[in-house]
Amino acid sequence: MNKFVNIALVGLGQIGNYLYNELNIKKKEIEIKTGKHIRIVAISAKNRNKKRRFKINKKIFYQNPLNIFKDKKIDILIESIGLSDGISKKIVETALKKKINVITPNKALIAKHGDYLSQIAEKKNVCLEFEASVAGGIPILKTIKEGLATNRFKKIYGILNGTTNYILTEMENTNETFDKVLQKAQKLGYAEPGNPKLDLNGFDAFAKVRILSALAFNNRISKHKCLMEGIQNIDLKDIKIASQLNLRIKLLGISEIINNQLFETVHPCLVSKKSYIGNVNGVMNAIIMQGKPVGESILQGEGAGPGPTSSSLLSDLLTIMKGNINKPFGLSSHKRKAIKAFDIKNYSNSLYLRFEVKDKPGVLSLITNRLAKFKISIKRIIQTPDKKNNKATIVIITHKTTEINAKKSLNIFRKNKNILKFPILIRLYN
Amino acid sequence: MNKFVNIALVGLGQIGNYLYNELNIKKKEIEIKTGKHIRIVAISAKNRNKKRRFKINKKIFYQNPLNIFKDKKIDILIESIGLSDGISKKIVETALKKKINVITPNKALIAKHGDYLSQIAEKKNVCLEFEASVAGGIPILKTIKEGLATNRFKKIYGILNGTTNYILTEMENTNETFDKVLQKAQKLGYAEPGNPKLDLNGFDAFAKVRILSALAFNNRISKHKCLMEGIQNIDLKDIKIASQLNLRIKLLGISEIINNQLFETVHPCLVSKKSYIGNVNGVMNAIIMQGKPVGESILQGEGAGPGPTSSSLLSDLLTIMKGNINKPFGLSSHKRKAIKAFDIKNYSNSLYLRFEVKDKPGVLSLITNRLAKFKISIKRIIQTPDKKNNKATIVIITHKTTEINAKKSLNIFRKNKNILKFPILIRLYN
Repeated sequence: MNKFVNIALVGLGQIGNYLYNELNIKKKEIEIKTGKHIRIVAISAKNRNKKRRFKINKKIFYQNPLNIFKDKKIDILIESIGLSDGISKKIVETALKKKINVITPNKALIAKHGDYLSQIAEKKNVCLEFEASVAGGIPILKTIKEGLATNRFKKIYGILNGTTNYILTEMENTNETFDKVLQKAQKLGYAEPGNPKLDLNGFDAFAKVRILSALAFNNRISKHKCLMEGIQNIDLKDIKIASQLNLRIKLLGISEIINNQLFETVHPCLVSKKSYIGNVNGVMNAIIMQGKPVGESILQGEGAGPGPTSSSLLSDLLTIMKGNINKPFGLSSHKRKAIKAFDIKNYSNSLYLRFEVKDKPGVLSLITNRLAKFKISIKRIIQTPDKKNNKATIVIITHKTTEINAKKSLNIFRKNKNILKFPILIRLYN
Repeated sequence: MNKFVNIALVGLGQIGNYLYNELNIKKKEIEIKTGKHIRIVAISAKNRNKKRRFKINKKIFYQNPLNIFKDKKIDILIESIGLSDGISKKIVETALKKKINVITPNKALIAKHGDYLSQIAEKKNVCLEFEASVAGGIPILKTIKEGLATNRFKKIYGILNGTTNYILTEMENTNETFDKVLQKAQKLGYAEPGNPKLDLNGFDAFAKVRILSALAFNNRISKHKCLMEGIQNIDLKDIKIASQLNLRIKLLGISEIINNQLFETVHPCLVSKKSYIGNVNGVMNAIIMQGKPVGESILQGEGAGPGPTSSSLLSDLLTIMKGNINKPFGLSSHKRKAIKAFDIKNYSNSLYLRFEVKDKPGVLSLITNRLAKFKISIKRIIQTPDKKNNKATIVIITHKTTEINAKKSLNIFRKNKNILKFPILIRLYN
């Protein structure tokens, strides 16, 4: 790389635009740290005239990002469009094939095509860096690849989505319903105004889990079927009951090696209010790793937003500018192995079950008999009558049981006239 | 560097010996990740025949580490003797001058001679890595240098010494005195059996603060006079009173830019039991950074012991083996500037003051008048009489005041017959 480094910036949304400004104001500092001078030689976005927080230089604007390659000599391309396929994939693929280093915060792209793209990068001996794709400003990928390199990990889990964590925290603090708090989150820019689904249903967190697993366990990005649940069905009522039990609901992403098999999941968990993870609130993200010989390590920080994301993008930029050619996943693609999936059916947890029932004799025993039939033993029962409506709420905390057992035992409650709705199930984190 | 990497290991105490074993069992994995094969070609320690946890190969043993250079071609030298000067300095200096990369967990050496040694490393174009010198297994230095590179930090603080944190936690949990708990810590290997002074008096944490500042603020390691207090004088009584006030005592290391001046300190702090830092217990370390644009970031992990320390040493090894030549402090020595010191006298905090007094009329007003004279206003007073002995304990929580004011106002209590001992002062963390 020369003393001058030519950068192309593709995608000028919230993140791309913030980064554009950061690059301009930090030129001098980057020069001090790397001895090289950066030049933004091309920018591209859908809409040239959209109102942006920071003014862009329209002289270097490209409507079609693929044209950049024809006109300019690019050293580093930063992709922040954010699609898992389409133009995002096309532009990254093309850049790598042309021996151009790529930086991207695009978790959807990496979770889906990371293996393929890293092979191109390795073949062409350029970098593909994606620190910002997981947990925003927290440098978790570099920590696994470098700071904790040679540790043997058995588990990595945490709060990987700031939107859902904000919603859960806010529901508990304000006693407002999911819908109300979601609206607030959208107003504050924490949730997508149009379609917040990918945050809420766990998909966003799950893409991050896939990337984390690949790094922590040196396997190829898995395509296994998985257990993915979001927070769409979390009711204020469950948050309140949890609170009385000194528990709190958190959407956790978990990746774990069980019997040499990989288990990846995202689902709401009940955690102790006294636990560390139970106190990571609002838009904060946190990741906990269990490694040998390092022991338990925790990283916490702001998981989203243009500031933290730019912090990680710039960190990738410096890595590349220092001339280090890293393997995208920390080791050669052909050394990364496929790993067998742990069978979801055998995933085992204590469960929180909430039944809404008619307040009639025999209903409780119907439930407890059914659980007993599947050897699900009960740790705690709280029955709260609603006399006026002749109803009751029964909350049961079970001892550990498998997914398959839980599913089978609860199935029957779909059509029982005394069970007013299908029971709510939330797993306890253990 | 060749396909074979020759390693010399100098110092075979707890850490060196554990690392020796790790290197042997992780050879294969290191080869997969770096494409290079390591060979331990020389080891050295004071005592060849000392009983060690892992067996060493005596054929490559050197009594005098300086002789290694004569006999062997070394690529990387790992120093884990631990002295701030003497043979530790000599061996590192010699290695660097001979263009040999150096890895060390030796915070005393780096805090004292880091600037000088890094200049040699840069001149000779080799690496001097010292990730393990701060916070054991937590990759905090790489995080500042790389993961959060280009962030502007204004403050970095945390629990940097596991020994003292264990003692404080254990005193609170067991109601045992400082001396009793210290003995327990020594038995468990958390405190030096012979001379635990450097942990207890804050010196160990302070060396780490100096290193952290240099990295976070890009300045040369400061030599300023500083405020350094350990936990030697923490009484069980203060821990109990703090607990009643929902506070907890933690030994914090703090480095901060105030009015463009550097302030570095280590002293016990009263923190809220509800705060994050108030819940980092036992031998855990934690570091909190406030940076722009990343926001607040937290790293937590095991701060000491051979396992976590080896994790960081191996991470340094991989960095070097991947062929990256990094500046030891993240940028050229000649670009790192001296930074003016913030005057300790103006350091300002709320204070916890505990007076042991004779239970006589006029004593409280003596104290409050004295504080008022120095414009120290009082937030809270708790007076607990000890009728039997005709004594009383007066605890005062003040509003913010400066060090100089506090010192001047308390001075008078050295010789007053109604004040039974010089008051205890603990700063509240704000």
